[in-house]
Amino acid sequence: MLEKYVKAARRLEKADLVLKNADYLDVFTGTIKKGDIAVVGEKIVGTGEYSGKQEIDCTGLTVLPGYIDGHVHIESSQLSPEEFASLIVPRGTTTIIADPHEITNVCGMAGCEYVAKASQNVPLDVKIQLPSCVPATPFETSGAVLNGKDIEKNIKNDYIFGLGEFMNYPGLINCDTDTLKKAEAAHAAGKVIDGHAPAISGYDLNGYLACGVSTDHECVTKEEIEEKISKGMYVHIRHGSSTQNLGNAKFITDKNMRRFILCTDDRHAADLKEKGHLDDALRKLVANGLDPVTAVICATLNAAECYNLKWRGGVAPFYLADLVAVDNLKNFNAKYVIKSGKLVAKDGKPLFDTSKRCLPANVLNTVHLKKPLTAGDFVLTLKGTKAKAMTIEPGGVVTGCETVEVQSRNGDVIVKGTDLLKLAVVERHKLTGNIGKGLFKGYGFKGGALGITIAHDSHNIILMGDDNEAMAKAANRLKEIGGGMVIVNSQTGEIHSLTLDIGGLMSSRDAESLQRDSKALIERAYSMGVNRSFEAFMSLAFLSLAVIPKLKLTDAGLFDVEKFAFTDINV
Amino acid sequence: MLEKYVKAARRLEKADLVLKNADYLDVFTGTIKKGDIAVVGEKIVGTGEYSGKQEIDCTGLTVLPGYIDGHVHIESSQLSPEEFASLIVPRGTTTIIADPHEITNVCGMAGCEYVAKASQNVPLDVKIQLPSCVPATPFETSGAVLNGKDIEKNIKNDYIFGLGEFMNYPGLINCDTDTLKKAEAAHAAGKVIDGHAPAISGYDLNGYLACGVSTDHECVTKEEIEEKISKGMYVHIRHGSSTQNLGNAKFITDKNMRRFILCTDDRHAADLKEKGHLDDALRKLVANGLDPVTAVICATLNAAECYNLKWRGGVAPFYLADLVAVDNLKNFNAKYVIKSGKLVAKDGKPLFDTSKRCLPANVLNTVHLKKPLTAGDFVLTLKGTKAKAMTIEPGGVVTGCETVEVQSRNGDVIVKGTDLLKLAVVERHKLTGNIGKGLFKGYGFKGGALGITIAHDSHNIILMGDDNEAMAKAANRLKEIGGGMVIVNSQTGEIHSLTLDIGGLMSSRDAESLQRDSKALIERAYSMGVNRSFEAFMSLAFLSLAVIPKLKLTDAGLFDVEKFAFTDINV
Repeated sequence: MLEKYVKAARRLEKADLVLKNADYLDVFTGTIKKGDIAVVGEKIVGTGEYSGKQEIDCTGLTVLPGYIDGHVHIESSQLSPEEFASLIVPRGTTTIIADPHEITNVCGMAGCEYVAKASQNVPLDVKIQLPSCVPATPFETSGAVLNGKDIEKNIKNDYIFGLGEFMNYPGLINCDTDTLKKAEAAHAAGKVIDGHAPAISGYDLNGYLACGVSTDHECVTKEEIEEKISKGMYVHIRHGSSTQNLGNAKFITDKNMRRFILCTDDRHAADLKEKGHLDDALRKLVANGLDPVTAVICATLNAAECYNLKWRGGVAPFYLADLVAVDNLKNFNAKYVIKSGKLVAKDGKPLFDTSKRCLPANVLNTVHLKKPLTAGDFVLTLKGTKAKAMTIEPGGVVTGCETVEVQSRNGDVIVKGTDLLKLAVVERHKLTGNIGKGLFKGYGFKGGALGITIAHDSHNIILMGDDNEAMAKAANRLKEIGGGMVIVNSQTGEIHSLTLDIGGLMSSRDAESLQRDSKALIERAYSMGVNRSFEAFMSLAFLSLAVIPKLKLTDAGLFDVEKFAFTDINV
Repeated sequence: MLEKYVKAARRLEKADLVLKNADYLDVFTGTIKKGDIAVVGEKIVGTGEYSGKQEIDCTGLTVLPGYIDGHVHIESSQLSPEEFASLIVPRGTTTIIADPHEITNVCGMAGCEYVAKASQNVPLDVKIQLPSCVPATPFETSGAVLNGKDIEKNIKNDYIFGLGEFMNYPGLINCDTDTLKKAEAAHAAGKVIDGHAPAISGYDLNGYLACGVSTDHECVTKEEIEEKISKGMYVHIRHGSSTQNLGNAKFITDKNMRRFILCTDDRHAADLKEKGHLDDALRKLVANGLDPVTAVICATLNAAECYNLKWRGGVAPFYLADLVAVDNLKNFNAKYVIKSGKLVAKDGKPLFDTSKRCLPANVLNTVHLKKPLTAGDFVLTLKGTKAKAMTIEPGGVVTGCETVEVQSRNGDVIVKGTDLLKLAVVERHKLTGNIGKGLFKGYGFKGGALGITIAHDSHNIILMGDDNEAMAKAANRLKEIGGGMVIVNSQTGEIHSLTLDIGGLMSSRDAESLQRDSKALIERAYSMGVNRSFEAFMSLAFLSLAVIPKLKLTDAGLFDVEKFAFTDINV
């Protein structure tokens, strides 16, 4: 192959592909240059004046290295990796560091393998980070457990790029043996460890970093960013759907610039489709005053360096021909996208087959119930008339705990006609029959039940409703469809659902029809009273996350995050 | 091990070693910080306030990451790797990218293995680059040949770090199959390729780089440096004994800074001992106006990034505890040097045993002659009275070609009493019996013969003299001592020599006594008339190098470098 590269580079033979008359970004000197870019096979072979078997006129366009997303959970889009690629590749992203944390919590290593395999169908380099925290907490039943030994075994796989965000910093800094083993295994395999260390600083941060953690995407303050960079971390500038810290870019200086990279972490399909991916981050960063060349270097060369992706992130000979030709460095509208030397998207549309889907049996039908549920399963017997009820604080993820007055009838708390709803978390992985039960105040929903199989991070079934029968029906329907979202209307008896067949988290369908149906279902939930300050279904998805204050509900019961212990609903 | 790191990082246990009250360079933000540096085992675990089992007071000192020499031939010091380390480690260098090109040209892979093995005796990380050009040219007989297949086999060895400077750029850009195979083998093994591309630019440079070459240490002009960096290369700032390009630092900007690294390439023992190693480069760069923080970052983090030496080149948790405490960022006098967590040098003196020497049989006794030489072997019969004579241009490596009038007697050219000397290159590896013969004008030496077994790059015996008998004696003595330098005095019959027992290139002795004896021998040569504008012996060492203009002599004959062909001595 080198012979072909050299001959084309020296213009003794035509290149396979030439981007003609381009302005292009030289990330190494931070300047815009003019010329043709010659490509042979998957590599750039030269810049200058070239002719090619295929030529693309880039007059008036600026060619950049393909963008690298430093940290993303594909599952948050509710799309398959193939469909996800069909949305982000046309935006200019050609490499992602993907942490399949959600699907692996449901399906174990089959989840990782699935994402790796599905990604091979599309022109996007998906570097798989082995999720480090499966389950995320010991306070719920997950679909899989990856302990130190499992990590040790699986981190060696060729298709595993590194170890995913190490959220269990208490485990590391308190020297839990099994937790340390995970980090040790990653180092033994020579693989990178991504971090997740919100507000950790000082000697605790030293302890965390002494385990060899490379990155953080959670920091937001100047002090935190400066300390983390100064202690050797790369810091992500995050542009997710709910969590963003584009403001981190304010703290970029000439000296620390190479330690900033971009990521999206969690981004919904609607945002990907309507606003974009890293192109949208670049657009906003530049609008906020960041030098566009610096912004692009963060999204390309810096990420390549951080993740040791040699020969990637630059427009130069022998670099991977991952390129995006944009209208300008303000709007970043991608006219052409080249992946590994092939034109794969034009004018925002993919040129690759987006209909192929990898659908292995072991990520389908992942909703397992010990037996069909009945109304009796949702009876909630309280000792007295005072109970703890969960609320959601403004912002959507932190919950509150309120003491409420309740009445009961036949040993079951009455919620109909009150501002309370029953909340239930039904274990769906291991046939334990576990059902955690609680009360929720102020969601607004009335006349039936809502249910969803996305429930961070173990993804059991979360149900909310004012009717035991409807809640049982909702759970049973979710099992029937293999996961997704459901609404049961007690009055009409109707059941409406949206299937998320892949692990109960993602759909194998195309983004467009999924979104249409999803919107309709969400509107139906609002029409049944859900307070519009909530996301009708997705606000439910965080009610199990027993690491975020204050009160949470898992399949094992009500959990007081501040006391870090289970708690009694009776006050 | 992580448990120990974490506990010390969090101050729950004492660190093994603490550098107290230091100013230290945070290379990631380019700032000097204050604090203690805690070390456990071979790693830094934290910065802040620490106490340790061992403590070193660094009040008033500035702690930097250990320096990384990006490209060096240890052989040029004429010292063993152990003795070389004893000179450079106390200067603050803790890692070198070593290309054992010379010893491998003599001994083949045994040369590489020797350098790797010897380096294990000393606290210096020696990353071995497999020499890519053995022999450097096909116009002489070398001790070994590493063709594409040999490179393919050996590059996979764990102890081989990458492929050494690819001097054979004509081979690459003209697509010589065997040459390309070498580069392909390096990529297949995932290893870095160092470059060597003086004045190559434009499409030829594209062709060279399309082979995946990473670095260049030969460039000197602004245009060349900018082009090379812009095309993805790292550029070395070189501080050798004869070849230097510290001026390259003038072209560092905020944007391209991360692509500059430091190296020494070839540096003599005397310079190492008297002036220093990279500390001397830093001193001079700063004296010339380079920002000291930038200079140190080039010598540390940048080199680590270039050579993919993860967790090296910074003062931060989990980074290798390679540290140098200097008096200030002007003089760079190293007070303490820490290698992999151990104090290994203090006040410029090594604290490690420098007497251990690895001396495998296969790098000793490397001077092989078919039979003892006699005066008759140096008879030079010319056809007429005009012949080509070699001269040395000012500067020492480029040679000239002058037509001279000669007289002969008994079929042998007369040099005695003229300003001509006989020059001979005696093949010493393969028992071919080859002797290349020529004339040299203007060296000044009279009354015997000089000889040396350092003769770039195949290292045959180079002899110069005005007496056939003395030349024969010189060659025979070099065989006897296993290589080195020799002077034969025809008048007194005395033979004086200095042994370079390792491959005929390096000595197994200590630097101090070697230098003393070497100086004495050199003075003896000058006393016999050698023009003081030459280096008495080392100027001979480049007379065989058939890639540098104009006229050279190899064991196969007189070579016209400009015509790139052998040439007749008769005019």
